[in-house]
Amino acid sequence: MGTISHEVRLKARPEGVPKSSDFEVAEVEMSPLSEGQVLVQNIYMSVDPYMRGRMREDFKLGEVMDGGALGKVVESANSQFAVGDYVSHWKGWREHTISDGSDLAKVDPELAPLSAYLGILGMPGLTAYGGLLVTGELKDGESVFVSAASGAVGSLVGQIAKIKGCKVVGSAGSDAKVAHLIEAFGFDHAFNYKTANPKDEIAKALPDGIDVYFENVGGPQLEAALDHMNIRGRIALCGMISMYNNGPTIAPGPKNLSAMIYKRVMMRGFVTPDFFDVQTQFRQDMSQWMKEGKIKYQETVFEGINNAPEAFIGLFSGGNEGKMLVKLAEQ
Amino acid sequence: MGTISHEVRLKARPEGVPKSSDFEVAEVEMSPLSEGQVLVQNIYMSVDPYMRGRMREDFKLGEVMDGGALGKVVESANSQFAVGDYVSHWKGWREHTISDGSDLAKVDPELAPLSAYLGILGMPGLTAYGGLLVTGELKDGESVFVSAASGAVGSLVGQIAKIKGCKVVGSAGSDAKVAHLIEAFGFDHAFNYKTANPKDEIAKALPDGIDVYFENVGGPQLEAALDHMNIRGRIALCGMISMYNNGPTIAPGPKNLSAMIYKRVMMRGFVTPDFFDVQTQFRQDMSQWMKEGKIKYQETVFEGINNAPEAFIGLFSGGNEGKMLVKLAEQ
Repeated sequence: MGTISHEVRLKARPEGVPKSSDFEVAEVEMSPLSEGQVLVQNIYMSVDPYMRGRMREDFKLGEVMDGGALGKVVESANSQFAVGDYVSHWKGWREHTISDGSDLAKVDPELAPLSAYLGILGMPGLTAYGGLLVTGELKDGESVFVSAASGAVGSLVGQIAKIKGCKVVGSAGSDAKVAHLIEAFGFDHAFNYKTANPKDEIAKALPDGIDVYFENVGGPQLEAALDHMNIRGRIALCGMISMYNNGPTIAPGPKNLSAMIYKRVMMRGFVTPDFFDVQTQFRQDMSQWMKEGKIKYQETVFEGINNAPEAFIGLFSGGNEGKMLVKLAEQ
Repeated sequence: MGTISHEVRLKARPEGVPKSSDFEVAEVEMSPLSEGQVLVQNIYMSVDPYMRGRMREDFKLGEVMDGGALGKVVESANSQFAVGDYVSHWKGWREHTISDGSDLAKVDPELAPLSAYLGILGMPGLTAYGGLLVTGELKDGESVFVSAASGAVGSLVGQIAKIKGCKVVGSAGSDAKVAHLIEAFGFDHAFNYKTANPKDEIAKALPDGIDVYFENVGGPQLEAALDHMNIRGRIALCGMISMYNNGPTIAPGPKNLSAMIYKRVMMRGFVTPDFFDVQTQFRQDMSQWMKEGKIKYQETVFEGINNAPEAFIGLFSGGNEGKMLVKLAEQ
């Protein structure tokens, strides 16, 4: 009899904020390995805001979803992989996966904690790095505003900008997160977008305006940023989490888009695969910064496949600080 | 006694759509010339949508406004300029101006009709050329949508795109204008945005999507374009005329801005002076195209300084086809 595993399936397409009943956890039995295959037991899986978009039509109803994951080879019929090898791959939302090896990348558990390969050294890291430096065309010493700054991506954006000598302002959804941005991550200013007025906060903290806005949320914070963008400022559109869960009544966009005209603002959307060509430079820079103690990161870890839906849903209620992960097995 | 002239002053800052009472025409007496000065009699002055923005705070209340103009030297105390020279300059909204010559550029009345220097060979021409080719990064054979396509800028955008082998769709505000876009300007498709649904029209005419949207209007047409942008499409923000005249109740922005993310759309605002560095190439290309009969243009001409405010107001009611001008004197 094969290994018994569990996986999370999309049961219903979410309307508005996803809820537990949109998902179901199912038991499956893994097939025996064919020649060339390996059985991977996942140790961590990633939940990310972009998955909300994939639930609209990309993920199939009644089938297992996917996403970033980090696992260990527990059986191998492939000479390239030994039992005990750690691998990163894209078959998340499940406890085990069978692979022919072509979609697995070995990672070194000595170089960094395993979970970092799903965070600072993985997709969120590359997202922050590429979005800020490539899409945002950040120059040393500029002024940066980042929304959802205590998230996995936002907290890295702020810290990379600080390394580049920039003045950095961030927003987050609680006073504790705001304090953490300033005290732990070295932001110059931060504010609670639920209680403060974004326009006032930005005007106060960046009286000379914003050169780069790293956009994670949409809504009033985008409108506030547009009001304060500098001539030839850039808006890197990473996400608009406040607008993802809109149901039949979709929130309108910013009223002041035309401010982009005379200020010659550039706004550009991106997805992380756009930055695969700078990945080598990214890994060099990021490991160097980690070594020098210039980058800190946080994780929020849920335990067990049964809690994966709650972890995902928590992304939209601000339930996480830093990277949101689900731990599926011991290392 | 000096020459008697008339000028248009900003009497009140317009709220919403400008009205006649926001302006007043005043009589002034020109001073005698000092050494080095010339007296210019304006033959044409330009009215343009961007002036609405300048009425918000840039133009001073109770003073004469300015803008593009084309005039003739009628008195000269400057050896660089002879009586009878034609000059383009920025002292519009008035019948006469005195200059030391530093802000005057001589134009050749044999090369093109004088009014063309305020249109196809002037600012609107450079706006269309730079916005489409520089900001929009147009490549030969792409698909282009342009709103306000029967305006001075829009009709040139469409024709330049056709010269570049593109498929071109335009919108305008009357069936007659729509017919003209197709029949006279060679657009592949055009629609009346007042009676047709922009999303349906774009989907039908450009089933493979939009590569470049040349944005003149904002509102529902921007939303429709965002829905149909291709991966790595570009939106050149020239104007948002539908949003300029908003009073206390400002129209919201597009609900689907987040479509820019996964489609990696770039949106960039520009103003015409951004393209001064391609002006030589622009003049070469445009005069070549004119010579080859590849470019047509239209003008709507009001007569006399007293009608300048009406000409300007007409821009916002679709009262013009092509470049809107005011003729102030015979050539």
